[in-house]
Amino acid sequence: MSLEADLFDWLEENLPAGLCCEIGLGDDAAVLKPTKTPLVVTTDLLTDGVDFLIDEVDPKLVGHKALGVNLSDLAAMAAKPIAAFVSIVLPRAGTKNNSPLELAIELYRGMLPLAEKHGVTIAGGDTNTWEGDLAISITAIGEATSQGPLARSGAQIGDKLLVTGCLGGSILGRHLQVEPRVEEALLLHDQYELHAGIDISDGLTLDASRLATASGCGIVFDIDQIPISLAANQMSKTSGKSPLEHALGDGEDFELLLAVPPAEASKLLATQPIAVPISCIGEFVDNPGLWKAQSDGTYTTLNPLGFQHEANN
Amino acid sequence: MSLEADLFDWLEENLPAGLCCEIGLGDDAAVLKPTKTPLVVTTDLLTDGVDFLIDEVDPKLVGHKALGVNLSDLAAMAAKPIAAFVSIVLPRAGTKNNSPLELAIELYRGMLPLAEKHGVTIAGGDTNTWEGDLAISITAIGEATSQGPLARSGAQIGDKLLVTGCLGGSILGRHLQVEPRVEEALLLHDQYELHAGIDISDGLTLDASRLATASGCGIVFDIDQIPISLAANQMSKTSGKSPLEHALGDGEDFELLLAVPPAEASKLLATQPIAVPISCIGEFVDNPGLWKAQSDGTYTTLNPLGFQHEANN
Repeated sequence: MSLEADLFDWLEENLPAGLCCEIGLGDDAAVLKPTKTPLVVTTDLLTDGVDFLIDEVDPKLVGHKALGVNLSDLAAMAAKPIAAFVSIVLPRAGTKNNSPLELAIELYRGMLPLAEKHGVTIAGGDTNTWEGDLAISITAIGEATSQGPLARSGAQIGDKLLVTGCLGGSILGRHLQVEPRVEEALLLHDQYELHAGIDISDGLTLDASRLATASGCGIVFDIDQIPISLAANQMSKTSGKSPLEHALGDGEDFELLLAVPPAEASKLLATQPIAVPISCIGEFVDNPGLWKAQSDGTYTTLNPLGFQHEANN
Repeated sequence: MSLEADLFDWLEENLPAGLCCEIGLGDDAAVLKPTKTPLVVTTDLLTDGVDFLIDEVDPKLVGHKALGVNLSDLAAMAAKPIAAFVSIVLPRAGTKNNSPLELAIELYRGMLPLAEKHGVTIAGGDTNTWEGDLAISITAIGEATSQGPLARSGAQIGDKLLVTGCLGGSILGRHLQVEPRVEEALLLHDQYELHAGIDISDGLTLDASRLATASGCGIVFDIDQIPISLAANQMSKTSGKSPLEHALGDGEDFELLLAVPPAEASKLLATQPIAVPISCIGEFVDNPGLWKAQSDGTYTTLNPLGFQHEANN
């Protein structure tokens, strides 16, 4: 039996039947029922040595992360996830602890609870082996709600910048244990007027600058209000950076960053309608760039910190 | 500038505007207009050393192949391609001839003409670098026609097995210069009654056995009618295999294999409605498995030859 055939058998036994699928695994392509609203599609490719160290972590966490980062992108668009397509290339010799087949199964074992939690059908994929290291590419498909997708470009001057959860220090564990804010985004988009959104993958300030640029405005941060995680505090003890610096630039928080009109933001902050806290950490302004309010009322520049993808050589 | 930002700039200048997209590159996810018919989704991951040798070929061909194999899967379902999502992981040190950015651009330069030819919008993707070799994962999305998708499972006893084009020897070049039979599949599905279909990626007999198994029947081949390519004849001079063996098992032909009711097959064979020849190479029978008709009217077993994906160790 080939790895692909063995894995197919395992998947047939272990994947729940897909609600969104007319044809799932085992044909040339999957067939998804048509949707009434626009489709939202995202793809992320994760690699050993960059996004995780496969010999040092439980591969279930890697599978969880690979799906989680994609669902976080759908959450950022306030789309309801429906299906995911999973391409994996496995090291032919396996890893320290697993044969290629075992590794593939563990990756799926990590994905399945997250898929189930968010109603995602794993509707197809491709699994190969090679002489190289593990890489996983997932494409996730969601449907926009009746309010439409939440883009990066809709923030208006005067909007408040809100953030879910606490930031910084995700490398201590949260970067693998991604909790995509899918339900939170859907609830907020349904019950409040949101103008724009993004998820924090590369760092608060870097992702905030993307939101500002796409919307043609700037952001003044209220630095004291930035919610700092326990992990950021813990890292600060040995990193030589302040907890705030960790919160501003570490990235992989996978929290939502939202532009919300002021009256709506007040309502939302008073109600706190989701399980994680929502904080107001700034305001959209006319002046492009990121700014820090000083105690005397003036602004100074805040340089975006964060994970800039690899330099081009 | 980061590689991702440089590539984004290049893509913004060079990608045609997407007809199917409300939001394309540059947000957390792409937004596709809703479709009336079911969506057909496929994904394929290609890797250096397995599907191509990046130091020995023009990377444009690799980009072309990566998209082409996905479009071939959509053709097998008789779906009209609309969008593709491209994830690439690049060797950080580049290749013999290209920096990582140049390599990414050449891959896209290979994809774009094929995308344009088939009306596919490259609507999103992810580009990273790592210490490993090149891997490309593409997810292609199509829409079923009003006749619905063409599955593997619809063949009926008595149906004829038809094949487009000529088979074998694709390694001499055609495996890179994939010509996905998209228009051909749409035309045939529109004008004739087709029961089932698959594309030949892993070898005629192996893919035929998948069609037979999915449809719960067997196939008797008319071996003399199998269309053998010039490349199969050429390879046979040095390979120690007959041209027929190459046609039966080489794979990566990316031709269509179709189950067609007999009267409809006669009409189709007489009309030859597409630019490549269509041949009748067998018939679906009650008896499971693949069979070869003997001159005395009896059958002998034909073992599937082809590319079985990697052994599981």
